[in-house]
Amino acid sequence: MLNFSFYMPTEIIQGQEVVTRNGDRFKQFGTRALIVTGKRSAQLSGAFQDVAAVLDNLGISYQVFDQVENNPSTTNVVQGAEAARQFNPDFIVGIGGGSALDAAKAIAVLAVNDFAPECLYHGNYPNQPLPVIAIPTTAGTGSEVTQYSVLTIPEKQTKVGFGDRTIFPKVAFLDHRYTESMELDTTRNTAVDALSHLVEAYLSRRASDASDMLVEAGLKLWARALPDLKSAAFSSGMRDSLLTASALGGMAIAHTGTTVVHALGYPLTYFHDIPHGKANGLLMAEYLRYNLQHARSRVEKILKLLNLKDIGEFAELMQILLPTDLRLTPEQINEYGIAASRTKNASHSLGEVNSQVCIDILNNSLG
Amino acid sequence: MLNFSFYMPTEIIQGQEVVTRNGDRFKQFGTRALIVTGKRSAQLSGAFQDVAAVLDNLGISYQVFDQVENNPSTTNVVQGAEAARQFNPDFIVGIGGGSALDAAKAIAVLAVNDFAPECLYHGNYPNQPLPVIAIPTTAGTGSEVTQYSVLTIPEKQTKVGFGDRTIFPKVAFLDHRYTESMELDTTRNTAVDALSHLVEAYLSRRASDASDMLVEAGLKLWARALPDLKSAAFSSGMRDSLLTASALGGMAIAHTGTTVVHALGYPLTYFHDIPHGKANGLLMAEYLRYNLQHARSRVEKILKLLNLKDIGEFAELMQILLPTDLRLTPEQINEYGIAASRTKNASHSLGEVNSQVCIDILNNSLG
Repeated sequence: MLNFSFYMPTEIIQGQEVVTRNGDRFKQFGTRALIVTGKRSAQLSGAFQDVAAVLDNLGISYQVFDQVENNPSTTNVVQGAEAARQFNPDFIVGIGGGSALDAAKAIAVLAVNDFAPECLYHGNYPNQPLPVIAIPTTAGTGSEVTQYSVLTIPEKQTKVGFGDRTIFPKVAFLDHRYTESMELDTTRNTAVDALSHLVEAYLSRRASDASDMLVEAGLKLWARALPDLKSAAFSSGMRDSLLTASALGGMAIAHTGTTVVHALGYPLTYFHDIPHGKANGLLMAEYLRYNLQHARSRVEKILKLLNLKDIGEFAELMQILLPTDLRLTPEQINEYGIAASRTKNASHSLGEVNSQVCIDILNNSLG
Repeated sequence: MLNFSFYMPTEIIQGQEVVTRNGDRFKQFGTRALIVTGKRSAQLSGAFQDVAAVLDNLGISYQVFDQVENNPSTTNVVQGAEAARQFNPDFIVGIGGGSALDAAKAIAVLAVNDFAPECLYHGNYPNQPLPVIAIPTTAGTGSEVTQYSVLTIPEKQTKVGFGDRTIFPKVAFLDHRYTESMELDTTRNTAVDALSHLVEAYLSRRASDASDMLVEAGLKLWARALPDLKSAAFSSGMRDSLLTASALGGMAIAHTGTTVVHALGYPLTYFHDIPHGKANGLLMAEYLRYNLQHARSRVEKILKLLNLKDIGEFAELMQILLPTDLRLTPEQINEYGIAASRTKNASHSLGEVNSQVCIDILNNSLG
């Protein structure tokens, strides 16, 4: 029997100048907005200027919280929530990469719920989070269309995601022009994050006919962008394809969640400062290899949609896109592997992902 | 550039016994429900009994309006709205084919908006319609996942649809077991309705990368059911595929609307009592032929996904599935063609659908 259960409440509006042309989508949420961004990309991309102009035009007053860190911590989003409480906005506009969008969602909850950030992870928020409008300036996170927010928890020395239906953004504006200011390494790292979402959703216990449809469409678009990603000469069409592939990856993991790849990637980010997408990419070839025993035809389908002949070629591609000299010690591999095997993400993987499987993936990738 | 704008706020829950297993989806809307159905199919399918048991279990009181006609008229939904006002429900559960689901949506508006049914067509309802839970017992309408409701307007002597974002059902339960009591002709007619939505969404000015994805997935599933549809021996798997294909057709037209096929089909239903899906099916081969000049590769893709070699084979298939001896007079063809050419649906078709195009399609199909 089929499983076509489907839930995607975010309205996706794609095209050039969609922010400017859809003022009504801002207006419907009220007259006061908090813009949540990082220090640079929102301005650099031109997205911030477009949003500010629309809000000015509509007489919507706004304040900016531009203190979002890379891989934002719980402490960081508490600061954002304080800014929100002082300004008392009707809605939040998140502009940026995954960090800014994930922070915007957490702030939307904390702004109206007077509890410690740990409570983000328990769901059942007493008060409905503020509506979030999400505007990605990278093409990878998919956060603009998911119910997830991943925060760094300093006490736990890792990143931990939470998910709640109430934090799906209400509207996601996809304008690939905002991704054109990304530099080469960020473009590649975030593109691989999108790929990772697509691959993990396809090789997940929770894969469904609905998520498969999204993944296959996403992989085709990702493959279209691949020549540009390799040659580092980026056309508008490639930016557009990647942004859409990224949204499709987000829509897919909104249904399936991620797998052990994400669980194994988090310590690489936390302890070794490897950007999130790159961290996943360094492990993905081994995840494909691991899955040959559980879902060979699915692995082959992924390779086919990417126009790659085998996992070896996939691994070479990752080496081109994600150069690294990171090598882990046996102790690190042991520690990260055991921790990852205990996560919910790991349990969504196919087969039985125990600590040995995790250790093997890390060892074969970075040992 | 891509167009992946996407909006599908309905939560789709698919599988066996999903109604029974998801009581929380009813409970979230309140403690009083109006069940809207036709006279027979809701009971015959077993869906009514499952819903009643769930509502009883949850202590949700309910009343039944089972007076929905085939191709419900504005008068008919006004009756339903009166029943709703007397009972004062928190939400509506529509169970049945397109007639019941479309009526449920109209009743959801009229129950809380004290205006004439003509106002359904103007949008901007002063009061938010009651939430609708939709449970299809046919596999064709897609109404469970659209913002549309098509009503017969006696004064205009035709069916006219209205669309409003506020009437998307909140939840659609897809359980193919509820479609197993359909008889052969209803199974075929409604299956062709689903096909018509898929084909029209693909051959529409409003087609997008998002709707194309939905259509292609839907056509593949429809093709899977085709051998059973021809042989009239129905497996559970075929019912399941068709119900999913139908939902995908609904999701697609939620983005694109329908085309001149629907506009031309309405008078066949109104004046000649041809069931809705069949009416579309009688015209579809000619719509494909018409589109050869505007989008040959898209027509060929449709045929390929259906495993048909050419439009001739498509036409033969429709003749097998939809036997008819209906023939129209030149006067009828003229009258229906002119009326259809003036509709919004017609303007969504590719090329310039003027009255001559409409007359030609009717003449070649039923002259």
